[in-house]
Amino acid sequence: MNICDRPKNTNIKWSLPAVCFVWQLSMIILFGVFVRYNEESDTHWVDYRKEKNITSDIENDYYFRYPSFQDVHVMIFVGFGFLMTFLKRYSFGAVGFNFLVAAFGIQWALLMQGWFHSLDYTDGKIKIGIENLINADFCVAGCLIAYGAVLGKVSPVQLLVMTLFGVTLFAVEEYIILNVLHAKDAGGSMVIHTFGAYYGLSISWVLYRPNLDRSKHLNGSVYQSDMFAMIGTLFLWMFWPSFNSAIADHGDGQHRAAINTYLALASTVLTTVAMSSLFEKTGKLDMVHIQNSTLAGGVAVGTAAEFMLSPYGSLIVGFFCGIISTLGYIYFSPFLEEKLKIQDTCGIHNLHAMPGVIGGIVGAISAAAATNTVYGDLGLENTFDFTGPFAKRVPTIQGGYQAAGLCVALCFGIGGGIFVGLVLKLPIWGDPADENCFDDEIYWEVRQVFFFLLTFYRFFSIKAIT
Amino acid sequence: MNICDRPKNTNIKWSLPAVCFVWQLSMIILFGVFVRYNEESDTHWVDYRKEKNITSDIENDYYFRYPSFQDVHVMIFVGFGFLMTFLKRYSFGAVGFNFLVAAFGIQWALLMQGWFHSLDYTDGKIKIGIENLINADFCVAGCLIAYGAVLGKVSPVQLLVMTLFGVTLFAVEEYIILNVLHAKDAGGSMVIHTFGAYYGLSISWVLYRPNLDRSKHLNGSVYQSDMFAMIGTLFLWMFWPSFNSAIADHGDGQHRAAINTYLALASTVLTTVAMSSLFEKTGKLDMVHIQNSTLAGGVAVGTAAEFMLSPYGSLIVGFFCGIISTLGYIYFSPFLEEKLKIQDTCGIHNLHAMPGVIGGIVGAISAAAATNTVYGDLGLENTFDFTGPFAKRVPTIQGGYQAAGLCVALCFGIGGGIFVGLVLKLPIWGDPADENCFDDEIYWEVRQVFFFLLTFYRFFSIKAIT
Amino acid sequence: MNICDRPKNTNIKWSLPAVCFVWQLSMIILFGVFVRYNEESDTHWVDYRKEKNITSDIENDYYFRYPSFQDVHVMIFVGFGFLMTFLKRYSFGAVGFNFLVAAFGIQWALLMQGWFHSLDYTDGKIKIGIENLINADFCVAGCLIAYGAVLGKVSPVQLLVMTLFGVTLFAVEEYIILNVLHAKDAGGSMVIHTFGAYYGLSISWVLYRPNLDRSKHLNGSVYQSDMFAMIGTLFLWMFWPSFNSAIADHGDGQHRAAINTYLALASTVLTTVAMSSLFEKTGKLDMVHIQNSTLAGGVAVGTAAEFMLSPYGSLIVGFFCGIISTLGYIYFSPFLEEKLKIQDTCGIHNLHAMPGVIGGIVGAISAAAATNTVYGDLGLENTFDFTGPFAKRVPTIQGGYQAAGLCVALCFGIGGGIFVGLVLKLPIWGDPADENCFDDEIYWEVRQVFFFLLTFYRFFSIKAIT
Repeated sequence: MNICDRPKNTNIKWSLPAVCFVWQLSMIILFGVFVRYNEESDTHWVDYRKEKNITSDIENDYYFRYPSFQDVHVMIFVGFGFLMTFLKRYSFGAVGFNFLVAAFGIQWALLMQGWFHSLDYTDGKIKIGIENLINADFCVAGCLIAYGAVLGKVSPVQLLVMTLFGVTLFAVEEYIILNVLHAKDAGGSMVIHTFGAYYGLSISWVLYRPNLDRSKHLNGSVYQSDMFAMIGTLFLWMFWPSFNSAIADHGDGQHRAAINTYLALASTVLTTVAMSSLFEKTGKLDMVHIQNSTLAGGVAVGTAAEFMLSPYGSLIVGFFCGIISTLGYIYFSPFLEEKLKIQDTCGIHNLHAMPGVIGGIVGAISAAAATNTVYGDLGLENTFDFTGPFAKRVPTIQGGYQAAGLCVALCFGIGGGIFVGLVLKLPIWGDPADENCFDDEIYWEVRQVFFFLLTFYRFFSIKAIT
Repeated sequence: MNICDRPKNTNIKWSLPAVCFVWQLSMIILFGVFVRYNEESDTHWVDYRKEKNITSDIENDYYFRYPSFQDVHVMIFVGFGFLMTFLKRYSFGAVGFNFLVAAFGIQWALLMQGWFHSLDYTDGKIKIGIENLINADFCVAGCLIAYGAVLGKVSPVQLLVMTLFGVTLFAVEEYIILNVLHAKDAGGSMVIHTFGAYYGLSISWVLYRPNLDRSKHLNGSVYQSDMFAMIGTLFLWMFWPSFNSAIADHGDGQHRAAINTYLALASTVLTTVAMSSLFEKTGKLDMVHIQNSTLAGGVAVGTAAEFMLSPYGSLIVGFFCGIISTLGYIYFSPFLEEKLKIQDTCGIHNLHAMPGVIGGIVGAISAAAATNTVYGDLGLENTFDFTGPFAKRVPTIQGGYQAAGLCVALCFGIGGGIFVGLVLKLPIWGDPADENCFDDEIYWEVRQVFFFLLTFYRFFSIKAIT
Repeated sequence: MNICDRPKNTNIKWSLPAVCFVWQLSMIILFGVFVRYNEESDTHWVDYRKEKNITSDIENDYYFRYPSFQDVHVMIFVGFGFLMTFLKRYSFGAVGFNFLVAAFGIQWALLMQGWFHSLDYTDGKIKIGIENLINADFCVAGCLIAYGAVLGKVSPVQLLVMTLFGVTLFAVEEYIILNVLHAKDAGGSMVIHTFGAYYGLSISWVLYRPNLDRSKHLNGSVYQSDMFAMIGTLFLWMFWPSFNSAIADHGDGQHRAAINTYLALASTVLTTVAMSSLFEKTGKLDMVHIQNSTLAGGVAVGTAAEFMLSPYGSLIVGFFCGIISTLGYIYFSPFLEEKLKIQDTCGIHNLHAMPGVIGGIVGAISAAAATNTVYGDLGLENTFDFTGPFAKRVPTIQGGYQAAGLCVALCFGIGGGIFVGLVLKLPIWGDPADENCFDDEIYWEVRQVFFFLLTFYRFFSIKAIT
């Protein structure tokens, strides 16, 4: 593809505004045609309550899910945004483009997921409530994971394109996994993490830059940027119990999902620290591992979070994920880059891909092993929704469908990623040259030089001032 | 006013402690005389429950509003505090004085708003619960907006005076708008943003500093300070749905307000990015716009958040606010400073004043356009509280009262601001000289020079250590 | 102890991984043997609901406590973690070791507290739900407070040992105070703050380093590190109402605890600012006071938070704590270090120890002063749990038991701290030499030098790039 070898032009003065305006206008039109409030967010709620004999406003789904929703919202915008600020000169791009991509993605996700899940066939409208907002945030999480693989190497226009396709693919694979296969995936180990990670890795593979080491001096962290990244890490870590329980069943479902995730994450921290220390000279810890691998347990417990995984089961999952994820940073990432030509800036293979697959497998096994003794008759039915057309499904069969769901997520991730990668290879998107990667100067007004001059100025004049 | 031209003395060793102690003691006395728990936070709740036949503790208003309250609380202290840290040498002042002002303001607001809204006439006491705490935070938000206009140019004593008067004025205009006019303003586009912004701008106009460019070298950001400001931006952005829904009606009211705000904010991000890119060379983005204009949609959807604005309506409001607010930073702010002599450090005219007025207008129009078909009979009555003395009011009339409310907010903001500005012009408050503005050294112990020396030290001795 | 004077070896390549792996494996085994879901987080909840005639899933304890739990979780990991980042070169250690210690501590706390409080004697299992997670976070808070005293002077292995013993001691003293003495301590002024602070101070006393001034140049803050610390301060400050109300009684108990804490904290901010300004030249403020003393009111109102302290009572408590805590930083901390040989890096004596003791005393007095007139008959019984074996206890007696509880907390803190300090004095834990304290280079891979070179590089090449 000779066309791709032209010198890079990072001027996005027309393409970025054009994409933003046109897509936002399209959103307005599509929302105008399709999107309405559902019965719990509409003023007719008062009538609905009477009709359904609901005793109190507190039983509006809003009160079951709003606290979790806000936690998830923080994970998407501060969690993912700040986690990616670890690069010394790409913090604006990390947090700013994350913001842009997520703000577009949630709108498009409300539509795409709405058509598949919330369409009211009586009037052809999508009816939205708090659960839709959570699902839109979830959908965007998949695209932000993918952003991690290409961080610093793409233009904001490419990111928007990636998100447009990513959300679309997500909605389809989600529909297949959750509705057609009737697999369960409360925390999205398969639907979000496996899909998102392989989507991003495949794109990065197609966009492979053989001369990326020309901007090697910027592909690393400094003290302050590592501290900003820890803000992201901690908000992700703390609110992950809300992530995995946000759309779980009311009552024990949400309660159990929160407990399982809390425990898995705690366990992961200890094994991550152990591995990090073991592989560095004199037992020092590496911030890259602490920032990322400590989160792997949350990913891996996603699918099984609402199952009766039991507390020690959660600890075991977290235990192994901390080890595997840290080993990933030490061994697999260099291997991926050198042998498979996959440049993975944030190491999403270690944080999302491997733990996501593990999560899918754990989900399949624990579903297959579910028994009436442990769950209770009603509990089993509730947890796996063995109702309606699925009334006769049994746990062992469910386990098979869970495994099938994992395969679907993988296929959509890899296939979709390759396709979108080829689209993004077109030389029209304003991506940076190899020597300008990981540099905020390309897409942002940066005033850094003042700081240096100011320091000098202060140093020589500090006595005069005070 | 010759007295105002004396050389500046920024020693606040006596004035600041005196104001803090005296005012805090006054608060204790006034709270002792006036403030008690309401029936939901008092130990008699158990009797009240029986009397009112409330089936469960979960119907205590605390459970409806506490999650939103905490989100609002974060917006006030971290959101506003960090948003203003963007200046390279005024981060302590931004976050620290914001903290001080808010901590005083919420106490005074509980009293002022209590006298107007929560006075129990049987015993002459103000009865407080969770909703009062939220309203106190809201009231303080108005003063913090005003702080944005004078950031870096006033002393903490002046800020406390500004807050004392600001909260007082706020409580009166709020009473007129919400109770006398019976206008609705769940998210405070008029009551909070319009009032607060014009209050601050008027003060800044009275305190105009012709020689402010003497501290021009400090009136800008650096890389790290822009990152800290993004913490503020994101927490404001993420929790704005809680802000606009915190005191909305239980059930569908809170639910709908959250959805509308979520959508308006998403839309604003895209148009802000588009405009920022369009007006910078080679399409680069400006952090000032991303930090501020992305929030304009939340301001503008405040009044109408609990109305049946419909999802696409929210997107439209956000769409235009992103454009207008960004244009404000590019064109109006320089105009305000040069022609109208209004120096607006944070650009609150673009983030709060214009979007606030738009929010008031959107509220008036959408109230006037409300119909029984869309809202349902009971829904219309609930949403606009067409009960008691207002039982016969119709939507078109309501629209008129909404517009009147906007005018009241404007008048109180401008009139009050001019008066308070004149008070603050007295040369007794310890404000900095023109050449010392935007500098933390004036009011804070700063240890910055160590950092520079340390860097040198490390540079030459790094090998010896490791 | 001559053995303790050997040259320091900070290589923890084997000890840290070994401790992490062995302890985490022990946790898995103990959880496997002992820990199960309780009736509200188990799939049998649906049967339990029917049996107990619970009308809605919303009455699951999860919905009463989950929002508070998440706020407490943020306080533990971001609040404590970032509060301690104020040192110029120990931010990784502050936030990273805080993370490690808390992740281990919550697991061990679930077991220790479980055996004392949540053991189901029918099957010998600990049954956990959301309240256990909150209590585990609380327990860890005690250990993190203790970490503040030894910050920068111990190895991560020592911290883990401190946490192992700390959690164990905590669970025992908590059992004695809450169950045997039947004292009330919703916000843990005694159980958490008094115990944790004296535990840490005693350890620091035993580990006294006479030559600590060899790393004096690193024992202080810089501008950026002070800003990171403010993130911790504010999240602690904002979410403290959730901390004190998290395990309070459903309904009015949680509601009142939140209001009391909100008010006490607001009051503390003003007196802290006043004192800080009064004792610095020209009335400047000191970030150390703003970061720490503003929180003292939350500590001191912990025990009495759910009592009918009344709003002005809370303000009074906050008023004095701001004064005392700030005076502590100015006068007591140097005294402690010079005369009592207690080196207290974060000043936990001023933030936790003194306010904690005050909180215990306030709790005892307000319990003793409780009357049926103020509380109501049922309210008094509910608030103090005068049921079962304690049905005949009266408020004055309760006051005595509260005071006894404070003594227990003090004894466990001091006694336990001296014992653990002696254990930590063994020369096997990899703690740093006196000249290497407060330095991240010892335990972390640090890439700081790049930043300096980069600044140079940028300075000379900035034109070439743009």
